[in-house]
Amino acid sequence: MPDATAAILIIGDEILSGKTRDENAQFLIGELRELGVSLRRILVIPDRLEAIEGAVRELSATYTHVFTSGGVGPTHDDLTMAGVARAFDTEVVRHPELEAILRGYYGEKLEERNLRMADVPARATLHRAEGLAWPVIALENVYVLPGIPAIFKKKFLAIRERFRQQPFHLTCIYTRDEEGRIAAHLDRVAEQFSDVSIGSYPQIVPHPEGGWRVKLTLESKERARVAAAADALCTLLDPASIVKVDSAQ
Amino acid sequence: MPDATAAILIIGDEILSGKTRDENAQFLIGELRELGVSLRRILVIPDRLEAIEGAVRELSATYTHVFTSGGVGPTHDDLTMAGVARAFDTEVVRHPELEAILRGYYGEKLEERNLRMADVPARATLHRAEGLAWPVIALENVYVLPGIPAIFKKKFLAIRERFRQQPFHLTCIYTRDEEGRIAAHLDRVAEQFSDVSIGSYPQIVPHPEGGWRVKLTLESKERARVAAAADALCTLLDPASIVKVDSAQ
Repeated sequence: MPDATAAILIIGDEILSGKTRDENAQFLIGELRELGVSLRRILVIPDRLEAIEGAVRELSATYTHVFTSGGVGPTHDDLTMAGVARAFDTEVVRHPELEAILRGYYGEKLEERNLRMADVPARATLHRAEGLAWPVIALENVYVLPGIPAIFKKKFLAIRERFRQQPFHLTCIYTRDEEGRIAAHLDRVAEQFSDVSIGSYPQIVPHPEGGWRVKLTLESKERARVAAAADALCTLLDPASIVKVDSAQ
Repeated sequence: MPDATAAILIIGDEILSGKTRDENAQFLIGELRELGVSLRRILVIPDRLEAIEGAVRELSATYTHVFTSGGVGPTHDDLTMAGVARAFDTEVVRHPELEAILRGYYGEKLEERNLRMADVPARATLHRAEGLAWPVIALENVYVLPGIPAIFKKKFLAIRERFRQQPFHLTCIYTRDEEGRIAAHLDRVAEQFSDVSIGSYPQIVPHPEGGWRVKLTLESKERARVAAAADALCTLLDPASIVKVDSAQ
């Protein structure tokens, strides 16, 4: 089975205009990594119906899971549910179970407008979990999460285990050589180990710790392949240039 | 003349896998805001030629300016120049002026591979600026910036004034009312002032400062329109609920 991929869609004028700093994508990057899910896209878009529709349509057709952040609420700028519905050629309908939760929560203080929170795409799935008063709403592979970081986190953490995959294996090699001097070796190993993802990250000035200039990363879900690629690369590199080799997981 | 728009394209496996936290998009959000440029998209993609080509093609056709971060360097995972060239149906060629800079910089230590840094899309423009040893390379409306934050910043700051527009005007209203109770008022003002961008941002719990629950933002490049929309909204809101009204710029 091919490995699960993911995209994050952040919906919010407040992020693009710098009023609020994104925390949700940053949180999810770490979560998906730990879960072994390969994150392939992060997209930040304005609170616009067509932008949401277009992004959801494209991302949901391309990646295993799509997580949206923001644009859920009762005001005019909360357009995520409508955008997700349109992306799947369906409509927004009032969900009886969600309406009941809202009526129970607000009681006599309920404003008609609060019920807009119960309007979700037809065919939406409600993912209930312990500790969640309000379920996570999904349509097919699109999970609609709220923009407020504390609630975003709580909701994702409640459903995270359903996304777990085999973990990534990573080895890092730190060298004092410059990129120009090792590029040909990297080409050779990258070609020989096309299933191992290899990155090269230079420092502007030698790192205080051992004077390394380039951090090389080798990564895959196959521990043995990462080890073999790292061995192959270490054989090609000047041994005197290698400051350290670290393996995680 | 319609106002300038922008997109940021972050190219880097290291961001998507959580090895490095993005600083460049975050920096540019603030810069573009201060310059009065309307940022419409942030996209983070892997170090893949087709991904870069596709993203650059779409973003450059849609927004006034596109700023890319990362993927410039001499190693196998540095694919931005090739991707940008492909997006504009052109090729990468060695630029004599850039080659001369590299030969001057490295002198006898030059490795053939270092010259890959002089390979840029045909028809690329070199934006030279005081204090920059290496010019900013652009192709049409796409500015190719390096991933290392210190260099990214230095290069952008050297060319930033060419992007300056009229400033944004922002007024914020803080109210103790809940979103459900004010949503209809927001609808009305948003409809009447369709040229003013209006946002509504709730707190989970009342804010310690004055107990406000919702921050309302009204924004446009026309100061008078922001003021008129804010007045219209304040007239509709319960006066006792308004904690404060702030105007910036």
